[in-house]
Amino acid sequence: MVEFGSQSMGDSTVQRVLIVGCGMIGTSVALALRNAGVAVDLTDRDPAAVAEGVRVGAGVAVMPGTPPADVVVIATPPSAVAQVLRKSQQCGLGKVYTDVAGAKRRIVADVERTRCDLTAYVPGHPIAGRELSGPSAARDDLFTGLPWALCPHPATPVTAVETVVELVTLCGGVPRILDPETHDRIVAVSSHVPHLVSAALAARFADATGTTLSLVGRGLRDTTRIAMGPPGLWRDILEQNAEPVTEVLESLVRDLAEATVALRNAADHDGALTDLLIRGNRGRARIVKAQQGPRKAGGSQTRHDGLED
Amino acid sequence: MVEFGSQSMGDSTVQRVLIVGCGMIGTSVALALRNAGVAVDLTDRDPAAVAEGVRVGAGVAVMPGTPPADVVVIATPPSAVAQVLRKSQQCGLGKVYTDVAGAKRRIVADVERTRCDLTAYVPGHPIAGRELSGPSAARDDLFTGLPWALCPHPATPVTAVETVVELVTLCGGVPRILDPETHDRIVAVSSHVPHLVSAALAARFADATGTTLSLVGRGLRDTTRIAMGPPGLWRDILEQNAEPVTEVLESLVRDLAEATVALRNAADHDGALTDLLIRGNRGRARIVKAQQGPRKAGGSQTRHDGLED
Repeated sequence: MVEFGSQSMGDSTVQRVLIVGCGMIGTSVALALRNAGVAVDLTDRDPAAVAEGVRVGAGVAVMPGTPPADVVVIATPPSAVAQVLRKSQQCGLGKVYTDVAGAKRRIVADVERTRCDLTAYVPGHPIAGRELSGPSAARDDLFTGLPWALCPHPATPVTAVETVVELVTLCGGVPRILDPETHDRIVAVSSHVPHLVSAALAARFADATGTTLSLVGRGLRDTTRIAMGPPGLWRDILEQNAEPVTEVLESLVRDLAEATVALRNAADHDGALTDLLIRGNRGRARIVKAQQGPRKAGGSQTRHDGLED
Repeated sequence: MVEFGSQSMGDSTVQRVLIVGCGMIGTSVALALRNAGVAVDLTDRDPAAVAEGVRVGAGVAVMPGTPPADVVVIATPPSAVAQVLRKSQQCGLGKVYTDVAGAKRRIVADVERTRCDLTAYVPGHPIAGRELSGPSAARDDLFTGLPWALCPHPATPVTAVETVVELVTLCGGVPRILDPETHDRIVAVSSHVPHLVSAALAARFADATGTTLSLVGRGLRDTTRIAMGPPGLWRDILEQNAEPVTEVLESLVRDLAEATVALRNAADHDGALTDLLIRGNRGRARIVKAQQGPRKAGGSQTRHDGLED
C-alpha cells in the first residue's frame, strides 16, 4: 500500500493532509491516508485524542508553522463544521477543505452565510460507520468499497472537487456526487431514522429484567446494534437534518400507529397491518438486491446522481 | 450424533416424534431430532412441504396406522394450534403434545376452552428463527444453545413436561420454564415489536430510487434483516399477542413522537431526544452484556424463571 502511494506521489495533488478532529471517522481517514503514503497532521481540541491518534499510527500532531495542507479534513461534530472551516480558512491551514458530517444542507447554508471561501470547500460524507467511537475505534479499511458523498457548491471550481475525489479514492472510498438536499433526504431514511428507531427499540431494555434479557434472540441484537452511537453526536446529526428526519419519522409513526389500531381492534379490517408487512418484505428485498449489485462492481469511478433522484 | 442417539435409546422416552407442519421451524425440529437418532414422521396440509421435508432428510411421511408418537410437535401457524391439537388428540396421534408458536396465552386459553387434554400438552416456543421460510430453509443446528420456552399448565403432570424437556434437549435447545403471560410480554418487546418496526423501516424502501438504494449502509441492512419474514405468518403471530404488542408499540411510538416534536421545534428543550438516545445506549449495553454472559455457560439444565420477572 505504501508502495502504491509512493509510486503515484509524483502525480498526486494530495501529499499532505490535516485532520481536524480525531474521533473515530477522522482518525480512520488519517489511517487510510497513511496507508496510501500520504503525510498526515492531526489536531483536536482534546489533546488526549491527538495523542491516541498518534499512538495508533494515524499521523503526527500538527506543529505551528506547518505549511498549508493540500486538503484539510474537518471531522468535528456537524454543528461545529462551518465555524471550524471559517477559522481554518482565516489561518490559511490548507489549499482545499472538506468535511465528513452526516448532514449537508445546513452546513452549506451556514458556510454561505458566514462568507467562507466556497471556491476551496467541498462538503463530504463517507457512508461508513461503526457503533464504537473515539480514535481507538478507528480502522484503516473503514471506507473500502463504500460510497462517499460529495456535495460541491456550483461556485466551487472543478480542480477543488478533483482534489477531494482523489482524497476519497486514496481512502478506498467510491466518490458519489449529489446535491445537499438529495443527500440529506437519503441519509434521513437510510441512516438517521434507523438510528433513532434502533435507539427506541433498545430503550425498552434500559431497565429490563434478567429473565427478559436471557430470552433475547438474534433479531433484537441486529435491530439494536446501531443504538450504541454517542448520544451527543447523534443528537447533533439529527438536529442538523431535522426536516427530512421528521418527515420520515412522521410517516413511519403513522404506519406503526395504524398497525397498533388494527391489533387493538383484533382485526386487520382495512389490511393496514398486512400491507405494512408486505411493504416491509418488498423494501427489504430491494435493499438486499441493491447491496448485491453495483457495490461489488463499483470500482472507484465517480458517479453523478443529482438528477436521478 | 446418531451414535449418541443410539446409545441413549434405552433411557430415552422420545424415540418417535410426529411433526405436524413442515415449515422452517417444524422441519428444523425434525432435522435436529433425526441427528439425535430419533424416528421422525412428517405431515402437513401441503403435500409438497412433506415431500421437501423428506427430501432434506427430516423424516418420512406419516402413514395411516402408524402407532402413537412419543411426542407430537405442532408446528402450524399460531392460530391453528388449538384446533390441530384437539383433532390430533381425538385421533390419538401421540402420547404427549407440544407446539412451537411464538405466542402462548391465547393458545392456552383456546386449549382450555375447547377441552383439549391438558394433562398431555406442554406449550412450547423455541427462541430461534431465520428470516427465510419453508422446509428448504430448515437447519439442524437452528436451536443449538438457544433458549426454548416451555409454559406448562398447572394441570399437566411433571412426566409430560419431562418428556418435552427431553425433546428440547435432543434438539440442542435450553429448556426455560415460565408462565404464558410472562413469555408473551417478553417476546412482545424482544421479538414481535422489533419485527414490526423492522418492517416499517424497510417499508420506506418499497419504492426507493436507485440512488437511494446505492447509498444504503450496514446500519440499515442490520435493522431491516428480520423484515423478510412471511407477512401472513407474522400477522398471525402479532394478532395472537395483540395486547402485549400494542402496549410496547404505544410506548415506542410515544418516544418517537416526542423526539419528532423536539426536532420540529429545533430544540431539545426538555431533553426528550437526548434522553431517548441515552436510554438506547443503556438498553443496548444490557442486551450485549446479557448475550455475553449466561448463554455460553448455559449448558442444558432447565431453568425456572416464572417468579423472577
